[in-house]
Parts: sequence; C-alpha cells; structure tokens
Amino acid sequence: MQLNRPLNPTERVLMGPGPSTVPQRVLRALAAPTLGHLDPEYLTIMDETRQMLRQVFQTNNEMTLAISGTGSAGMEAAVCNLVETGDEMIVCVNGVFGGRMKDVAQRFGAVVHAVEAPWGQGIELEQIEAALKAHPKTKIVGIVHAETSTGEHQPLEAIAKLVRKSGRLLIVDAVTSLGGIDIPVDKLGIDVCYSGTQKCLSCPPGLAPITFSPRAVDAIDRRQSKVTSWYLDVSMLRSYWSNERVYHHTAPINMTYALREALQIVLEEGLEERIARHAHNYRMLRAGLEALGLEYIPQHSLTTLNAIKIPAGVDDLAVRKRLLKDFNIEIGAGLGPFKGQAWRIGLMGASSSQANVMLVLSALEQLLVEQGVAVERGAAQAAAAVANKSVASLV
Amino acid sequence: MQLNRPLNPTERVLMGPGPSTVPQRVLRALAAPTLGHLDPEYLTIMDETRQMLRQVFQTNNEMTLAISGTGSAGMEAAVCNLVETGDEMIVCVNGVFGGRMKDVAQRFGAVVHAVEAPWGQGIELEQIEAALKAHPKTKIVGIVHAETSTGEHQPLEAIAKLVRKSGRLLIVDAVTSLGGIDIPVDKLGIDVCYSGTQKCLSCPPGLAPITFSPRAVDAIDRRQSKVTSWYLDVSMLRSYWSNERVYHHTAPINMTYALREALQIVLEEGLEERIARHAHNYRMLRAGLEALGLEYIPQHSLTTLNAIKIPAGVDDLAVRKRLLKDFNIEIGAGLGPFKGQAWRIGLMGASSSQANVMLVLSALEQLLVEQGVAVERGAAQAAAAVANKSVASLV
Repeated sequence: MQLNRPLNPTERVLMGPGPSTVPQRVLRALAAPTLGHLDPEYLTIMDETRQMLRQVFQTNNEMTLAISGTGSAGMEAAVCNLVETGDEMIVCVNGVFGGRMKDVAQRFGAVVHAVEAPWGQGIELEQIEAALKAHPKTKIVGIVHAETSTGEHQPLEAIAKLVRKSGRLLIVDAVTSLGGIDIPVDKLGIDVCYSGTQKCLSCPPGLAPITFSPRAVDAIDRRQSKVTSWYLDVSMLRSYWSNERVYHHTAPINMTYALREALQIVLEEGLEERIARHAHNYRMLRAGLEALGLEYIPQHSLTTLNAIKIPAGVDDLAVRKRLLKDFNIEIGAGLGPFKGQAWRIGLMGASSSQANVMLVLSALEQLLVEQGVAVERGAAQAAAAVANKSVASLV
Repeated sequence: MQLNRPLNPTERVLMGPGPSTVPQRVLRALAAPTLGHLDPEYLTIMDETRQMLRQVFQTNNEMTLAISGTGSAGMEAAVCNLVETGDEMIVCVNGVFGGRMKDVAQRFGAVVHAVEAPWGQGIELEQIEAALKAHPKTKIVGIVHAETSTGEHQPLEAIAKLVRKSGRLLIVDAVTSLGGIDIPVDKLGIDVCYSGTQKCLSCPPGLAPITFSPRAVDAIDRRQSKVTSWYLDVSMLRSYWSNERVYHHTAPINMTYALREALQIVLEEGLEERIARHAHNYRMLRAGLEALGLEYIPQHSLTTLNAIKIPAGVDDLAVRKRLLKDFNIEIGAGLGPFKGQAWRIGLMGASSSQANVMLVLSALEQLLVEQGVAVERGAAQAAAAVANKSVASLV
C-alpha cells in the first residue's frame, strides 16, 4: 500500500446502478471554498437547494431538505421519523430495497406486514387492499418506486390513491427515479419521498433528498416518543433548515454546493425534457440489448436502470472486468438471488446519453461474441433505428 | 431567491468551532472524477484511507473506518453499536456534546447515569469511580475529550485506565481533537473513538472517522439484538470495509477522496509536529486575548478551540457580524447557556497559523475599542512575544 501516492482516479463511464457520471460543473461546485454551516451565504444556499428540491419532487412541502447521508440514510430517516415502537407498517418487498425497508422498520420497532411479489414483478393494488383489510391498525405503507435490484418500475397512482383514501401514511423510495422518471409527489399524495444524489441527479453520493407532507409532519408532531435516531430526527433538523436556524449538526457544506449545482442542471434542462431523455435512451438501449438476444428481468422496466439476464455460459465477472479494463465502462452486478445471474446497466442523469448507449452496446456485442454467444444482428444498428424513429416522430 | 445565480462562496478565514479552512489540495481531491463504490480503484482508496486513519488515531484496530455522515453520526454510531435496550451507561456531561451523547444513548435504550460537572470544568476521576461503584452493572462509559461548547480539554489518562481496569467499554468523543491534540487510542485503551473531518483534519464536513477496539467488536458480536440503526450498523459496514466487500450502502466517494488527501497532509506534516503547531499557536492566541483583557471559560483549555467570555457591554452579534463583513473572519457564538456570553475561536488544522492568530487579534482589538472596551496594550505584540520566546527556545 503506497499511502503517499497522488490521487488520480480514472474517469469512468458510469453505467452501473449509481453513481452516475458527475458533470464537471458539479465537481467544480463541490470544490468551492468551504463556508461555515451558519454563514449567511451558506444559509442562502440551503434555501435555494430546498426550493429546487421542491421543484424536482414536484411538491410544495415545507419540510423538504437533504439528509446528511446517502440514499439509505434517507430511507432510515423516512422510516424512523414515522415509526414508533409497536406501530404497524405494510412494507412492499419485491427486491433488495423493499427488503431493506422492512429490516429498517423492524429495527425501529415497527410490526411489519410484508406484501411480497417475486423479484422482477410489481406489487398489485389488490395485494395492498387485502393487506389493509387484514391489518386495519396499519399506520404506514412503504413501497419502492424504482427497485434498483430488479429494474422493476412500480406504478404508484392507484396504490397512492388507495393509501391516501384509507388515511394511512405513504413512504415512497425514489432513489433510482427522482430526476429521471416522473414522480409528482403532491399529485400522487405521497407523504414521505426520499432519494439519493448519485443516481438521476448526477451529483456525487453523500446526501439524501427527502420531503415530508404536512400530514407526515403532523404525525411526527404527535409522536409519543422521541425519534430513536438523534442524527435523523426531523423535528430537530427542521429547526436548522427553517428560519430559526438552530444548530443541529454540521451540514456537509460542499456536498450541498454540488447538489445545488446538480439541481440547477436538472431545472435548466427541464424536468419533463429530462424524463423524456431518459425514456428515449432507454428505448434505444432496450432495442439494442434485445437485438443481442439479451432478456430483461423486470415485468415493467425502469427507464433509468436495465436489469438483464446474463446468457447461459457467459462468465459474469470476466465480462464486467473487460468492460472496465478495456472500455472503461462500469456496469452493475446482480444483487442477492441475482448474483451472477444479472447485469444492471444504468442510464441515469448525465450517464443517460445516446453516446453511452452506443458505446455499451458495441462493447457488449464484442464481449458476448468472444464469450461464444451467437449474436444475430448489430445491436448499435437496432438502437439507431429506434433513435431515428423517435427523431422522425418529433419532426 | 435567485435559483439560477452562479455559486461563488466567499473564501472565509474559518476560525469558528469548525469547519476549519480546507486547503486547495483537499478541495482538488474532492473534485476528482467520481468512481463507483465497488470499483477496484475506489476500494484501494478506502484501504489507504483506513490505514492513514489508524495512524492518526494511533491505533492498530482493524475496525477503523469513516462513517458516511458528519461527526454527530460518528457519535450515534459509537453509541448505537454498543448499546442494547436496558444497558447501563455512564455519560459524562459538562457541555453540549456530553449532553448530546446522553440524549443519543437514551434514545437507543440505554439507562444513563450522568456524571456532571459545571460547564467549563473537567470531569474528575473520583466522580467516575463513585459512579462505577454506585452502578455496578454499567457496561459503557462515554466521555468527551474536547468539549467544543466550552473549550474544556478533558484529561483522559487516569479515567481510561480506571475504565479499562473495571472491564467497561470506553467511548471517547474526539471530534475537536483528532489531528490537533494527542489522542493515542491504543495507548490509552479507548474502545471506541470518533471524530469529524471538518475540525483538525481540515477536510469538508461529511464523514466521521471512527475506530473500534477488538473488545468493542467482540461486544458487538455478542449482541442479543440487531443494532437499531441499519445505516450505522458496524457489523454490516465491516463487511464492506473488509476484503469481503459486501455492498452495504453507496459510500460518499468524493468525500473519501478529500479525507484521504487531508490525512496525507497530516502525515506529511507529522502528527507530533502538527500537535505542537496547534499548541504553539494556541499559546500565542491566548497571550494576545488575555492582553486584550479577555477571559478564558475553561479550566483547562483546548489548544484547538478558545472559548472566551464576551466582556460586559459588548454586543456579541455586532462584533461577529463586523468580523465576517469587514475582516472575512468567522468565529463561533456561544452554545446553550453560553449563548450571547461566549465567543469560540478555533485554531484547527489549516486554520491554526500564526498569521490567523495575528489577524484575529488585530481585528478583535479594533472592534473591542470601537465597542468602548478599555484595551491596555497591543494584543498582537503579546502574541508575538510568545512566538519569539517559543522560537528562541527551539534555537
């Protein structure tokens, strides 16, 4: 180990399940001079950041902020602020992140009723209806919008409507969708929605954007017990993020700069346009991957993450190592039961580009041929056909 | 609010209780290209970082890592990994951060026996002896080495020896001392020691260096219940930081770059030399502040943070605003009962320099005179006299 070597990380093409490629503009913001966490200039930056977060979450929620931790800290903050020991919570589990939410809720004392679906499938409205009927004391329903482990895109409209009508609180994990797939928090009636910075926002990992509806804030205000986590206690974080500015903990100043810049980029592009870009590049990639004979795992795929089955006889690790070494491309491995069975190709934020689609398809085509897979026709051409069609439809 | 304005934070002279000034070298490392959290290059950077953390903590502890949150997340990680519901813990409280540790321990289910001392005074060995006698079932003792709210430097040698001999586990908060004041973890026999990056390490806030002794790891292994916090559960973080590399959460990649660079700077200077520099600049500042008639609050002051009483009749806010506006200097306000009563002047990491000492003394002298305080003699000269004496003693 050479501790005094200079730090020069390779510039990767980040096409895994996150982090996505961080634009130079965001890295420059990250490296701006550090201010104190109570400096008036920093407080302005916080205000601007939360205002832009509201726009990206499509919400008017006052309690919109960035948790000082990565996406999983956002999940923990969502759960631990709403759950009190003995509270009943329905958690939808159809992948790693639903399973994680169940684990987190149980740790913080919830009685969890799991609603399960096979990995790669969505949760059905009827399952939640039945669970609510079976467990009438349920206080909270938790669900993952974009299941990063399976690539499954969970439709939320009907489920959110049901939960709202039933008077329960709805927590939605939007780690792999916020800024890349439409998630209109207020329109859907979501109570707590959280994300990470390193996915479709293309900011380095380190913060977890989160928003709480007035109903959720009211539930927090009516707690009988303190939130178990001091660090994530929103009733205290609120005082720091509001005009009271009561010191809680030292915020990750430079990460806030980066998030602010990343949000500016999102709003400059336009949320709608950005979502359309993700959809377009997904269609291209999908056409190319399917042309290579690769099969999608999810019933209803995310446009931000493509989970595909590794063809029989193909050496998972060898292909990913070659992608990294020869093409400088990172893609993701399978998680849990999908270990060795799946690849996860991310098209998030700045990484979602036609150029990256073409690059990863060409590289994969070459490596699959080397691995002895019979590839029928060029993947890049299939993708290009989709691109041309989309462009034609715009003209 | 102008959301599309460019981000151009002022370069402050950071002399508050943290963050301290971040060197350009660290900011450049922060802005290096983002790697994936399982990229072999990043794993090497993690290994190097933890090896350098061991050197700075003066420990051989295998379980040495950086928690993905700020210093308070380090405190929460220390407490929640050791505490199980009903465990008895002695917490020493003589300022905000001891009080915070008590709160955190209670939230995670500990029965806390507080050992208290007035703010600005240290905890005496006899108090802990008595508490251990009164509460023989005590499992953990928690104490703050550098109480950032009062500037009190807590001597640890005798207390650590006592706790070790008694078979209890010792948690030490070294947020405002690590890298600036000697804290030899192994020599003292500390079981869990944590810090923040934005104090004497002069890295932006966002990570909490932490180290666990084999005894602490053993206690974690013998837990009957899961750690309540999933995010901070060291039994899982361990698998990611070890050669197993089991994915837990996405690490704050760029912050790790910055921490690694900051630790390199510490080791290039030399830990001993760095500690001596902090002591030297403290002596200068103290001589200058006392020449201005300003009185120290703590019985035994830290060399990294100077907590002084605001003279009667002086307008706290007006002085701090002028310091910021006219001199670009940030100093800290008083916390809790010291609000409006104290200033806290930090000399941490890169902020601990003779130049900063001279600057803050000159500025304060001018502002105190303006506030009508009778200042007897030049503060800068008094500081310079100390500097000259120190230099003479070295020749």
